Amino acid sequence: MESTDMNQQIAFIGLGVMGGPMAANLAREGYAVKAWNRTPNRPGVEVAAEAGVTVVSSIREAVASADVIFSCVSDVPDVKEVLLGTGGVAESARPGTLVIDTSTIGPEAAREIGTQLQQHNLRFLDAPISGGDIGAKNGTLTIMVGGEAKDFEESKPLLEVLGKTIRLCGPMGSGQAVKLCNQVLGAVHAVALCEAMQLAQQQDIDPNLIVEVCSTGAAGSWALSNLGPKIAASDFQPGFMIKHILKDLRLVQETLNSSPQELPGVELADRLFKMVQEFDSGKGGEQGTQAMIRAYRKS
Amino acid sequence: MESTDMNQQIAFIGLGVMGGPMAANLAREGYAVKAWNRTPNRPGVEVAAEAGVTVVSSIREAVASADVIFSCVSDVPDVKEVLLGTGGVAESARPGTLVIDTSTIGPEAAREIGTQLQQHNLRFLDAPISGGDIGAKNGTLTIMVGGEAKDFEESKPLLEVLGKTIRLCGPMGSGQAVKLCNQVLGAVHAVALCEAMQLAQQQDIDPNLIVEVCSTGAAGSWALSNLGPKIAASDFQPGFMIKHILKDLRLVQETLNSSPQELPGVELADRLFKMVQEFDSGKGGEQGTQAMIRAYRKS
Repeated sequence: MESTDMNQQIAFIGLGVMGGPMAANLAREGYAVKAWNRTPNRPGVEVAAEAGVTVVSSIREAVASADVIFSCVSDVPDVKEVLLGTGGVAESARPGTLVIDTSTIGPEAAREIGTQLQQHNLRFLDAPISGGDIGAKNGTLTIMVGGEAKDFEESKPLLEVLGKTIRLCGPMGSGQAVKLCNQVLGAVHAVALCEAMQLAQQQDIDPNLIVEVCSTGAAGSWALSNLGPKIAASDFQPGFMIKHILKDLRLVQETLNSSPQELPGVELADRLFKMVQEFDSGKGGEQGTQAMIRAYRKS
Repeated sequence: MESTDMNQQIAFIGLGVMGGPMAANLAREGYAVKAWNRTPNRPGVEVAAEAGVTVVSSIREAVASADVIFSCVSDVPDVKEVLLGTGGVAESARPGTLVIDTSTIGPEAAREIGTQLQQHNLRFLDAPISGGDIGAKNGTLTIMVGGEAKDFEESKPLLEVLGKTIRLCGPMGSGQAVKLCNQVLGAVHAVALCEAMQLAQQQDIDPNLIVEVCSTGAAGSWALSNLGPKIAASDFQPGFMIKHILKDLRLVQETLNSSPQELPGVELADRLFKMVQEFDSGKGGEQGTQAMIRAYRKS
């Protein structure tokens, strides 16, 4: 099952910042990709079209002859709409088709959606991704997969076009579970970074010196090496937007709702990100996660 | 000034877990090292003696003919005692001798002690270290130096025996300032790691899978890669003890005392480490920082 079948017909639903370059990579690899995006005139749609993706105007058109269907949209309601809604995947896909959702929606929603797709005789993998727009463009994403082993094996040649670290994490929902842990690390690492940077400033130490000296040892992190220089330069352009990490932290909270476990570091990160979201007349959430430093600077 | 002078006489005050192997490395490099430790029968003393360090029974004896004096002890009162106290370095060292303190004591104490040593016609560098007992043994420490550029250049051949990343961070106290930022990162990374591990457990995900999948991407950190597997194995042996990070976080708080800046992530880490310190009839602080997970597990 693991051999590459270049005759596979691929559908790709959602050509955003991530989905656009992912669909493009599949087309460049030689796959026939039909794709749909809710809003036609977007940079991700152009990126995909230029790489040879056929952009169509309905989900039905994209998925009708597909063997594998990818979806890459924003939040739980969007995934439900494109997969289960009127005119969506469940209505139009052929029985037995493999649906791979790469959106981050939490394990509970993934299980619910996957179960409903199975009732339509479709197969489902949750396969949330990490690595940002650069990882999507370069095909170096980390892909965390939940579902049946045989579906995972079938999907592997395709996932290997999109990512570098690809793991089956367990049954349906497990990819989402690992992704939420990943986001917890990222969110609290931002707190660590911002507090070290503020302490440096307080002591008249060049923040770039902290990046240089501390990143080689036991205090090192991706966040320090990659977001530290951006904070030093007050460059708040996204990478990964605050509004998106806030969505993911909401999914973490929802996952914990039924348990007594408290994660005070996550709560702190959530509070700080929300403070920044309020800045710029409510547009602060469009900045990158490194803009958490603005909560400390109170501006 | 940067050429190696193998005729330099070295004194080393404090042969603990860090100081012992550091003094040993200087002796192995060919330097004449006289060393003193408050308690004679300790593993670090043996390590140094076996490498050719001459262990003497008073600070006076160790420093009387020294060109460069290292100190590596625990906390502010210890440094004050060995450098400025009765029978200490300031009483016995020759005028012009370079004193290099590698203890972590915070910028304010470093400046105070350095200024007093200058009044005794001694030169001073604060040079706190990071990298643990393994870094001390292998000569791969990170050394963060504060003081005069010419003293730093003079010390460099010696520091290069002890460490790999060696930086002059600024005037007296700056090495300490950078070290505190380093400790802030380490402490809050522990929070991130523990919360990701707890969320994994909550969702029936193997914690080692989190280490494997998340360490390659934007959620990666030294803590995840190195302390994550220890948490997964409930191995709480130190590396770096909780009681030592608590001392360092106290120094952070003291440094901020005069400012309105709040570091809630540091406060959270401090609270969690203190909870674990209370465990095991008050002996919990002897465990490694990864034992913070016990605060989440409440046992």
